[in-house]
Amino acid sequence: MTDVALAFDEQEYIPAVAQDADSGEVLMLAYVTEEALERTRETGYAHYYSRSRDELWKKGATSGHTQAIEEVRVDCDGDALLYLVEQSGGACHTGYESCFYRTVDGEEVGEQVFDPDDVY
Amino acid sequence: MTDVALAFDEQEYIPAVAQDADSGEVLMLAYVTEEALERTRETGYAHYYSRSRDELWKKGATSGHTQAIEEVRVDCDGDALLYLVEQSGGACHTGYESCFYRTVDGEEVGEQVFDPDDVY
Repeated sequence: MTDVALAFDEQEYIPAVAQDADSGEVLMLAYVTEEALERTRETGYAHYYSRSRDELWKKGATSGHTQAIEEVRVDCDGDALLYLVEQSGGACHTGYESCFYRTVDGEEVGEQVFDPDDVY
Repeated sequence: MTDVALAFDEQEYIPAVAQDADSGEVLMLAYVTEEALERTRETGYAHYYSRSRDELWKKGATSGHTQAIEEVRVDCDGDALLYLVEQSGGACHTGYESCFYRTVDGEEVGEQVFDPDDVY
């Protein structure tokens, strides 16, 4: 079996969706570079690339809220990834389990699982 | 309640992840413009913007495999959307239920739900 060919964009990023492997909750969307993906596969922990800080980061390096990788999937045209993860704590820096804790109308529908003041 | 401010990128796109509201399966990732999102909210059916064809499209317009919207969520920093949908047929043009039907190693893990030759 050979790796699926990936279509990084012109800035060499691919969006990666992290999903809780147990609950199925979609946790976050971030970007990876080839190196971030390699690091993810080598270590078994989700790594991303911060476009604003311009650096590779391990999810949870500061907060302890790591994402142990269960599986990495790729979509039909190779330009998006899906990380199936075991999430420690909450995925969102706001304290919510998922970054998608609001509807687009502004209603809060997610669950807060930690107090960000205790973590950051 | 007011709409959450959205951070469209410099090309005026936001990535949108479609998730099956019942099974929790992540179906696809595509992009929306402000107009595509408006159309989605007005009609109750998922619309996206094709960056390669440079046009607004309704998911399922050709195949019949529409996505009825149950909820649209937005992430913490307003630069990604989550469509919770009721998927008719399969989301992927390959016949799989989800576009994420392979691991990055090339193993097929998804379920094929229709024959693309019958649809396109």
